[in-house]
Amino acid sequence: MAERYPSGMHGAIASALSELLGDGVTVRTATQDQPENGLTDDVLNRTDVLTWWGHATHASVEDAVVDRVQQRVLGGMGLVVLHSAHFSKIFRRLMGTTCSLAWRNSGDTELIWNVNPSHPITAGVPQPIMINDHEMYGEFFDIPAPEELIFISTFSGGEVFRSGCCWRRGMGKVFYFSPGDQEYPIYHQPEIKQVLANAVLWAQPENVAEFNPPSVDNSPAPIFNDRISVHGMRS
Amino acid sequence: MAERYPSGMHGAIASALSELLGDGVTVRTATQDQPENGLTDDVLNRTDVLTWWGHATHASVEDAVVDRVQQRVLGGMGLVVLHSAHFSKIFRRLMGTTCSLAWRNSGDTELIWNVNPSHPITAGVPQPIMINDHEMYGEFFDIPAPEELIFISTFSGGEVFRSGCCWRRGMGKVFYFSPGDQEYPIYHQPEIKQVLANAVLWAQPENVAEFNPPSVDNSPAPIFNDRISVHGMRS
Amino acid sequence: MAERYPSGMHGAIASALSELLGDGVTVRTATQDQPENGLTDDVLNRTDVLTWWGHATHASVEDAVVDRVQQRVLGGMGLVVLHSAHFSKIFRRLMGTTCSLAWRNSGDTELIWNVNPSHPITAGVPQPIMINDHEMYGEFFDIPAPEELIFISTFSGGEVFRSGCCWRRGMGKVFYFSPGDQEYPIYHQPEIKQVLANAVLWAQPENVAEFNPPSVDNSPAPIFNDRISVHGMRS
Amino acid sequence: MAERYPSGMHGAIASALSELLGDGVTVRTATQDQPENGLTDDVLNRTDVLTWWGHATHASVEDAVVDRVQQRVLGGMGLVVLHSAHFSKIFRRLMGTTCSLAWRNSGDTELIWNVNPSHPITAGVPQPIMINDHEMYGEFFDIPAPEELIFISTFSGGEVFRSGCCWRRGMGKVFYFSPGDQEYPIYHQPEIKQVLANAVLWAQPENVAEFNPPSVDNSPAPIFNDRISVHGMRS
Repeated sequence: MAERYPSGMHGAIASALSELLGDGVTVRTATQDQPENGLTDDVLNRTDVLTWWGHATHASVEDAVVDRVQQRVLGGMGLVVLHSAHFSKIFRRLMGTTCSLAWRNSGDTELIWNVNPSHPITAGVPQPIMINDHEMYGEFFDIPAPEELIFISTFSGGEVFRSGCCWRRGMGKVFYFSPGDQEYPIYHQPEIKQVLANAVLWAQPENVAEFNPPSVDNSPAPIFNDRISVHGMRS
Repeated sequence: MAERYPSGMHGAIASALSELLGDGVTVRTATQDQPENGLTDDVLNRTDVLTWWGHATHASVEDAVVDRVQQRVLGGMGLVVLHSAHFSKIFRRLMGTTCSLAWRNSGDTELIWNVNPSHPITAGVPQPIMINDHEMYGEFFDIPAPEELIFISTFSGGEVFRSGCCWRRGMGKVFYFSPGDQEYPIYHQPEIKQVLANAVLWAQPENVAEFNPPSVDNSPAPIFNDRISVHGMRS
Repeated sequence: MAERYPSGMHGAIASALSELLGDGVTVRTATQDQPENGLTDDVLNRTDVLTWWGHATHASVEDAVVDRVQQRVLGGMGLVVLHSAHFSKIFRRLMGTTCSLAWRNSGDTELIWNVNPSHPITAGVPQPIMINDHEMYGEFFDIPAPEELIFISTFSGGEVFRSGCCWRRGMGKVFYFSPGDQEYPIYHQPEIKQVLANAVLWAQPENVAEFNPPSVDNSPAPIFNDRISVHGMRS
Repeated sequence: MAERYPSGMHGAIASALSELLGDGVTVRTATQDQPENGLTDDVLNRTDVLTWWGHATHASVEDAVVDRVQQRVLGGMGLVVLHSAHFSKIFRRLMGTTCSLAWRNSGDTELIWNVNPSHPITAGVPQPIMINDHEMYGEFFDIPAPEELIFISTFSGGEVFRSGCCWRRGMGKVFYFSPGDQEYPIYHQPEIKQVLANAVLWAQPENVAEFNPPSVDNSPAPIFNDRISVHGMRS
């Protein structure tokens, strides 16, 4: 991986976003080995969209950090979940399912087909995107039915995978995108970088003031009752 | 086709349903060359689920027949739309879109993957179903997003297709299933016959008394107003 | 109506959009009594989003015009369908259902509740929007299940209505919004004008070059086959 | 509550199911004060559909029990979540959101409207169901968009609530139904009992053999590759 991604997976993703989105965004990175996994309150409070790539060491992400990220997503922060982060605590927390899937790492060709061509995440993307060699992720992918299904991948081994999926959770938006494995130079492909950039733009907060999750409202004032009682007094 | 399907496509489909559903169903067939395309009022009035296979001659189906079938579906009749009937007038009428797709007839292997394993249409079906040789149908398939996505197919040429899709329209249920082309013996495969039978059971009418489409209701009696005025009189 | 809407319903809607969207949009109007119902090829070719208000005389809209508008929507034009246009030919064409509903015109109070608070159509809108007096539209509303449900209305008579609903059809986006009846000054309410403006922004074309509906693609080049045969030659 | 529900909420629900479903079901009850909250492995292993009513003491349900119930749902067990159990650990776990809502307990009339009249959960149910006096639950209800929206309630105070909602999670089905509060005799109403019975029938496991949640599959055999290599050998 060090050869392919000398600045790490996080570096490659950050670099892609900076390259395509330019001054429109401020890109920062955090890594699991930092205190609080790099996701302190202060960091999250300055984050509109969080991209999450993780592999193998999901279990060692702190539960308190997962709680905090979940609250921020429910309050409006976008979350872009990448590749093996399907098994991250935060994704499983937001989905409620096992998020398990079929896989095989034998360098299959992957074709990513756009099944939602008017969706902003697919802007400027060819039909299909081809990845010459990649780990295979296949169905059954145990997720809640996507609210918007964007991409479906086929593999030269014959498998299929819902590889680009959108959900809303609370005030936040979540996008899962299955490329790319650390053993392949996928985040250097222009089409993949385009999807990452599109996804970040799509996932940005909307109608969000203070990133508070929805909360209980115990309102004292019935509305129809008032109106009708006024009407009743008239008659 | 005559060799492969000596009793016609309609005969093969009817035979599959009779074989798997037995005395639970009464299977009848209608063909386009019959008066009113075989779908008279009388015939439809005795039909709970209609399977529709058609090819090339969609345009010559009478509009009055399409109107009648649409009304019956909206009134609760199930509709199972097969293969090239994606371009039938009735399917396009119920979808509102072009229903166009990619295709290529070069004997690809098709693998049909189950992405909804707790759905009754997938009962008893292997993962995946393999069709050795078939016409390729691919994305983008111009349909409204399926309310339930059941099957996705891959092809040895690399394409992908949402090959099993559910919608509700009015009181009726619609299932599209993309196998099988007349040049291949697909409706003789046990797994495909199983899907056809499952689909017919799933599509049968529910909560339907007289197969009337939903209609306008101009009800004279406000409810909260009455209640509140009663309450008002009490006080 | 003439008192309440001296420039017509179309004038009031156009005026709201101009007021809120300013130089960002060019607003034009068309009326049913114009040649080709005001919706010539030339007019549609210059239209990104079409708002449609209609009442009672739906049947006299020309079928050729409906065909043309449908093609343009499938090609990417946004469509905002308002109030009694639930019965317009174009809406029924795109939905495939009767679009019937319950109604009663007795000046009910309507409360419009936002059930999708991170959706851009709800930006800047209070919870709920109150309309003091309005025609009641109620369930069952015979539409395909909305892909995104945005607003639900309650009425002082007790009824409920899915009053703000989103769908994609082809490359285009469709929003139905049930206010406002011509007998009430609803399009003068700031909150309603805000929804109209939000809806137009949401419905604008994305990823659209030439407004062509999706069409059949018969591609000659299998992809996995090619790759695998290369691999085969190696061994 | 003791007067209204002398055998407890669980007793009333069990009684309704026994009355309507008769010999078709075996009904058992479990309560939170039992060891392992009454939901031991042995109990769950004999349960096809679990109804869950809970109030106020959600926090004291053991996390290990919630884990176990979640695994069983993902493995195929149906879950019917009732009223204030919107805040149960298990529902929040499966939804991934806060599940917060608006509420007010002032004896509003609630009308439950059927917006999915061909759905089996609505079989035999009047339009609307009226509850004379009930706690108000209102929007915004912070849940993932229901995969099938069945019922929407209005209240005499003017509020609205998505009161009947379906989701699939793993191999299991989940139905949330917002009636009934312990202070009102709602589970004695025949229409409500009908919905409970319908929901249990709908939620029963389908295509489930051993109630195992979906799991990772690392299959060794590529399929298209094999086929193509065979073809390659021919040439």
